[in-house]
Amino acid sequence: MQPVVSQELFKRSRLSELCAPPEPGGMLKSVAPDSGGMSLVSIDPNRFRERFESFNEIGATDAGGVNRPALSPENITARDRIVEWFEAAGLGITVDEMGNIFGHRAGETDLPPVMFGSHIDSQYNGGRFDGVIGVLGALEVVEALDDANISTKRPLEIAVWSNEEGVRFQPDMLGSGVFCDVFDLEYAYGRTDEDGVTFGDELERAGYKGRAACEPRDLHCYFELHVEQGPFLEQEGLSVGAVEGVFGFSWMNVTFEGQANHAGPTPMNMRRDAMVGVSDVVQAVRRITATEGTDLVGTVGSVDVWPNAINVIPETVEFTLDFRSYDNDVVERAVQRVQTEIETAADREGLDYEFEEIMRVDADPFDDDCIQTVVEATEKRGYDFTRLVSGAGHDANYLNTICPSSMIFVPSVDGISHRESEFTEWDDVLAGTEVLLSAVRQKANE
Amino acid sequence: MQPVVSQELFKRSRLSELCAPPEPGGMLKSVAPDSGGMSLVSIDPNRFRERFESFNEIGATDAGGVNRPALSPENITARDRIVEWFEAAGLGITVDEMGNIFGHRAGETDLPPVMFGSHIDSQYNGGRFDGVIGVLGALEVVEALDDANISTKRPLEIAVWSNEEGVRFQPDMLGSGVFCDVFDLEYAYGRTDEDGVTFGDELERAGYKGRAACEPRDLHCYFELHVEQGPFLEQEGLSVGAVEGVFGFSWMNVTFEGQANHAGPTPMNMRRDAMVGVSDVVQAVRRITATEGTDLVGTVGSVDVWPNAINVIPETVEFTLDFRSYDNDVVERAVQRVQTEIETAADREGLDYEFEEIMRVDADPFDDDCIQTVVEATEKRGYDFTRLVSGAGHDANYLNTICPSSMIFVPSVDGISHRESEFTEWDDVLAGTEVLLSAVRQKANE
Repeated sequence: MQPVVSQELFKRSRLSELCAPPEPGGMLKSVAPDSGGMSLVSIDPNRFRERFESFNEIGATDAGGVNRPALSPENITARDRIVEWFEAAGLGITVDEMGNIFGHRAGETDLPPVMFGSHIDSQYNGGRFDGVIGVLGALEVVEALDDANISTKRPLEIAVWSNEEGVRFQPDMLGSGVFCDVFDLEYAYGRTDEDGVTFGDELERAGYKGRAACEPRDLHCYFELHVEQGPFLEQEGLSVGAVEGVFGFSWMNVTFEGQANHAGPTPMNMRRDAMVGVSDVVQAVRRITATEGTDLVGTVGSVDVWPNAINVIPETVEFTLDFRSYDNDVVERAVQRVQTEIETAADREGLDYEFEEIMRVDADPFDDDCIQTVVEATEKRGYDFTRLVSGAGHDANYLNTICPSSMIFVPSVDGISHRESEFTEWDDVLAGTEVLLSAVRQKANE
Repeated sequence: MQPVVSQELFKRSRLSELCAPPEPGGMLKSVAPDSGGMSLVSIDPNRFRERFESFNEIGATDAGGVNRPALSPENITARDRIVEWFEAAGLGITVDEMGNIFGHRAGETDLPPVMFGSHIDSQYNGGRFDGVIGVLGALEVVEALDDANISTKRPLEIAVWSNEEGVRFQPDMLGSGVFCDVFDLEYAYGRTDEDGVTFGDELERAGYKGRAACEPRDLHCYFELHVEQGPFLEQEGLSVGAVEGVFGFSWMNVTFEGQANHAGPTPMNMRRDAMVGVSDVVQAVRRITATEGTDLVGTVGSVDVWPNAINVIPETVEFTLDFRSYDNDVVERAVQRVQTEIETAADREGLDYEFEEIMRVDADPFDDDCIQTVVEATEKRGYDFTRLVSGAGHDANYLNTICPSSMIFVPSVDGISHRESEFTEWDDVLAGTEVLLSAVRQKANE
């Protein structure tokens, strides 16, 4: 999982120059001040498409996806490519202690910048759009403004967040989490992958441990363009979603413990079968979601059985629960109800059980003004849109704790994401990028 | 997993002398012919208990069980101990090509022998009684006859079967299976453990690949003393069970395939959750066992989920089904009904599925005359008993295909077996052994 040494050294020596933020205004190119009349700036569909296809050759999988988990060789190559393109676009580059990459376009003033971006790490064998369009779309926004010789009052800053997916190092959104003071830097450095390699060591080996402090700073606002990862926009025939906020959720670990015994001589009335308890809870999750709030979703995603043999009654099953809603009270009621169901299932089967809620995150409403900016940008561009709520968490959630934030969604075909078959129509990617451009330009001139 | 070399060489040189069957009658000790009056011969409880405790020091676990899987160093030590004790008891020892160990006590004639025994390999961290009491009990039977100076018309032969448990090398009952022509020798030799080591190579390394052919031969009958591994005898307060036969069973592999997707943004009505299908089938198995024949048992023992993550809807679940009954028609109906339930569950959730029945074994009724012999021996000894059917398979099943067979069960406390907490009251072990003695003596004088 390590890049070759020569590449490392090259990057380390180069990045050592990049880790301090550029002088404000130092990268200001000779472009005209924005007229303020908000004439529509065009993006270059061909340039964007070529860059998107070229970028997704890195770590491309046979099934049409990409495999670029955080700090994998492919992720490092992708980082190098981004740095190269940012440099070519004249952006001032900063890499912070968490390996977050920032591309800075100076404004006419030193007012706090408008930040926008996403991530380029992927799921194992994930999709080509998730995160990528938010970063390459951001670059296209900057280049489109350059092409049109338009400057902005405030600086612009593209953010490329480390370890968003959380598949190699957990938890997810680690880079933006440290940036927003949700996690300590040392905690993040100490996160280990399956082989026991720490994020900090791997970041250093990759040559992406920058010198810039990873900590909250004064930002005017934050926008993120992302695929919806759900089916609503496609079902409604819309190109763009103005994201009002993100579902809250509860994650739970449950263990049922019964008694392993031979599947032949043990009569049904003598059994304490942990798998029967799990089956009851899976049914209960469906009942709870059917009766408790229209947006509530519930999932039993992970199930581990012991001893897991064809002829032995399951003694122990560890499984997970995930409930999400935009209504915190609905999540709370679901958690209460499922605990009752777990107790009932355990009583019925004579099982012991352990229940632990390992994470609870409240619903996160985005900033009204940023949402309205996205809505107006979409209307100005003439795209069909809706306001919607995201079921999944994003870096924008953490950014929303330190500055006004919102997101722009584009449709996911069949609602599929985190898989190689993830797909978004290119026209929708372009639409979302144009909306991002208009929203960024609007806020950058405030 | 290999014994030290010097021990190997010692055994090989010794076993090379043992691999040919002894001359019939050659081991005949100077004992009196059986009177035929069937006076009750006593076993020696202390000798038997001391031997049992000493034997179970081999591979003893901290939790009170034993760990002696087939051809492990501990199993080899246990084999050596058995050979040593058989020799000390004056038995003629044969080791066949499968590593089955036979201890031969000559009869007054060369008529086909009465065979009895069991196995000494254990589950990983298994119990102290399973198999062991059938072998050590058999040795106690022979020594008790020796003590009483009683010979029998027919030879007696103790059998110690290789790889009964099937936990290291599958399938189970491999040694008796080859002996009874259920499996080819080459098939058995080629079975591999988790590390890819073959049974044949490991047998040779252990020094227990004998020269005697492993093939059916003329036996008068076969008895096996074993723990019940179920709760009936203990529940009924009985010491002994005369086993009428063994359940038939069906083993099935099922795969549900839905669609992995993010647990947050995917609404409930868009899900194709393979785990929900499994939950439906677990419920169905309970319904089927509740309504289809009083002895039917059904188990979903193994469940493997992919991708098995807290925040991803399960795409693929592979799971197993096990149905058993003494009535072959009941098993057949259960298999039919569960297929309908699988199809219904798949339709309901929009899943694809694969169904394969990987094994079907008919119920195996033991020999009426052998069963009656056990019943009469139990009555003669004055123990409370019942006729019962075994839910689990045993070496006796295969022996039953080549000669009249039956089994003697003693109670398993709480029906527990295959675990370190497996336990049988010592008085019950003694009772079963006395019944074995009387049954063997009865048949050996026919």
